[in-house]
Amino acid sequence: MTNRVINFYAGPAGLPLPALERAKEELLDFAGSGMSVMEISHRAKEYDAVHEEALALVRELMGLPANYKVLLLQGGAHLAFGMIPLNLLRGGRKADYILTGNWAEKAYKEAKLVGGENVRVGASTKDEKYARLPKAGEYKIGTDSSFVHFTSNNTVEGTQFKAFPKTDKPYICDMSSDIMWRPFDVSNFGIIYAGAQKNLGPSGVTLVIIRDDVLEMCEAQDLPSYLRFKLHAEKNSLYNTPPCFGIYILRNVLAYNKSIGGLKAIEANNLKKGELLYGCIDKHAGFFKPFVTEKADRSMMNVDFFLPTEALTDTFVKEAKKNNMVGLKGYRDVGGIRASTYNAVTVDNVKTLVSFMEEFVKKNG
Amino acid sequence: MTNRVINFYAGPAGLPLPALERAKEELLDFAGSGMSVMEISHRAKEYDAVHEEALALVRELMGLPANYKVLLLQGGAHLAFGMIPLNLLRGGRKADYILTGNWAEKAYKEAKLVGGENVRVGASTKDEKYARLPKAGEYKIGTDSSFVHFTSNNTVEGTQFKAFPKTDKPYICDMSSDIMWRPFDVSNFGIIYAGAQKNLGPSGVTLVIIRDDVLEMCEAQDLPSYLRFKLHAEKNSLYNTPPCFGIYILRNVLAYNKSIGGLKAIEANNLKKGELLYGCIDKHAGFFKPFVTEKADRSMMNVDFFLPTEALTDTFVKEAKKNNMVGLKGYRDVGGIRASTYNAVTVDNVKTLVSFMEEFVKKNG
Repeated sequence: MTNRVINFYAGPAGLPLPALERAKEELLDFAGSGMSVMEISHRAKEYDAVHEEALALVRELMGLPANYKVLLLQGGAHLAFGMIPLNLLRGGRKADYILTGNWAEKAYKEAKLVGGENVRVGASTKDEKYARLPKAGEYKIGTDSSFVHFTSNNTVEGTQFKAFPKTDKPYICDMSSDIMWRPFDVSNFGIIYAGAQKNLGPSGVTLVIIRDDVLEMCEAQDLPSYLRFKLHAEKNSLYNTPPCFGIYILRNVLAYNKSIGGLKAIEANNLKKGELLYGCIDKHAGFFKPFVTEKADRSMMNVDFFLPTEALTDTFVKEAKKNNMVGLKGYRDVGGIRASTYNAVTVDNVKTLVSFMEEFVKKNG
Repeated sequence: MTNRVINFYAGPAGLPLPALERAKEELLDFAGSGMSVMEISHRAKEYDAVHEEALALVRELMGLPANYKVLLLQGGAHLAFGMIPLNLLRGGRKADYILTGNWAEKAYKEAKLVGGENVRVGASTKDEKYARLPKAGEYKIGTDSSFVHFTSNNTVEGTQFKAFPKTDKPYICDMSSDIMWRPFDVSNFGIIYAGAQKNLGPSGVTLVIIRDDVLEMCEAQDLPSYLRFKLHAEKNSLYNTPPCFGIYILRNVLAYNKSIGGLKAIEANNLKKGELLYGCIDKHAGFFKPFVTEKADRSMMNVDFFLPTEALTDTFVKEAKKNNMVGLKGYRDVGGIRASTYNAVTVDNVKTLVSFMEEFVKKNG
């Protein structure tokens, strides 16, 4: 038996064991081909079947309408931060960026490099260390804005949009850290993008979902080819050699997600996990202090909380590790504890953490 | 026993079996971490060891002097085609591109998008369908040129520079399809780049080797961050989440290459493979017709040849497959047969192909 730990890393993060076991089983001989999936030409029928299945599973699990294209690219959210303004903020188009954390700020700064004055702040809670999301009255979206960019889940700060910002402009959304955490209506989204390494698969694959009318706005014939969304869409993400093995693992993860009941079942698990973990934090409010100030904004993917002292925080991380749980140290700018509870973290995993927390309070509270 | 085929694909291509076996063995539990290497934070010590070892192995195997940086990026040669002019062809700098095939043309076209008139053709054998490389007198490198770009091995056409173009300008070189096929002196190279999926590992990793003085010329503060070589160099390729699993496989491949004697041993194998394969083609010159017109230009990585008829070509590919050899169909623009014999293809693999070719001539010649 393999000794597996409980993985609370913020990304790259744990993947469903059956998806990995499937990969292990056929690592030297994929589908009777006599090759690893990473040794097969991306133009060969064996890889093509994987590629098409991965794209179809994204479409099926998210319930994407026919007017959306699904792309599987490289470079992570970071490259997408640049590709979005390079493709869309042309001809004087303007966009409003909602600043809700470390990653939202990065997206904004990258867009500013390309769009300059045309990239504006549509709302920000920076003054409150991003410990909550903007409230309804705090948005200032220009009537001349073509897009509103936001980050659906803030990995560092542990906030998450349950309801999306109210605006009649198309959303461009970085969903890297909560894509497919639940079913939702995509129709207001112009672009959804996500690095795979939290909820979808290994690092090195970027999922980009783009609505046809927004794709048509990408006039970028003067950009280097790799940076053009439209070209990737026309070539079905096979313009150049895709990250075949990463896409294969993503396929395995999504096939597993489908097998356990799709996003509805995953949402139920995620809500249960949040209830258990935040329940424990709230129960011991004198000991555990959440970073996020508004309960409604709490993330079901990244749970940030503090212990009474830094010494206790260190002890918590070390003791957890002895109890087979890794990745709990908070992000450097926030400190404390961060438990990342992406889709692959099970309800039982969270129960184990909560039991550990209860014990920890008993001993140290 | 796993049934493995002999893999002559042009890329993604075969990898050394021991590198894959190592990956299979520890796919669910890397180095006693209780996680797959693809589930570990890229800031964790377990991944860091892999990252550093991969970089060090590139340096060691290629004998890189201290004034070179090694980067491990994403996006393949295609993204590098754009990043090179975006980073370097600024302030009116000029470059000459040597056109020797399909991929060299792509690199040139991408550079033109950024550099316009400042990107020039330094030599071309397009009129001869790229069936040979330019000869000494055919180069026209501007005295005002900052760089000479060339493609060291032409995957589609099957030509390969054994001696590099004569010029006093720094080389920028796409070595995607023959990197590490032999030892060579890097000192004239400003940038060497290579998609991993031929000689190094799986697709989704791009190796970029850049000389310090050339790195200093990359003034690109206004470019989206991911596109800046300098930033990646400053952050040791950890500015953003790297393609961890791909880098891990690359590490496995390079560690294996080192274990069998490094690039000297690999060169000896490659020369032997070339001798066997071209020997057979030349022996049956009435039956097999090489695409490349100059013997000196023949690639040791991609061997293109024609059979007397298209029907025989089809039969050859089908019969080879029955004999456990895949990937032999020529590239669509060239036709015929292409046997890609990258580092992972063994001398014995090539002997098997040559025996098959001998039999094929006997039956059909």
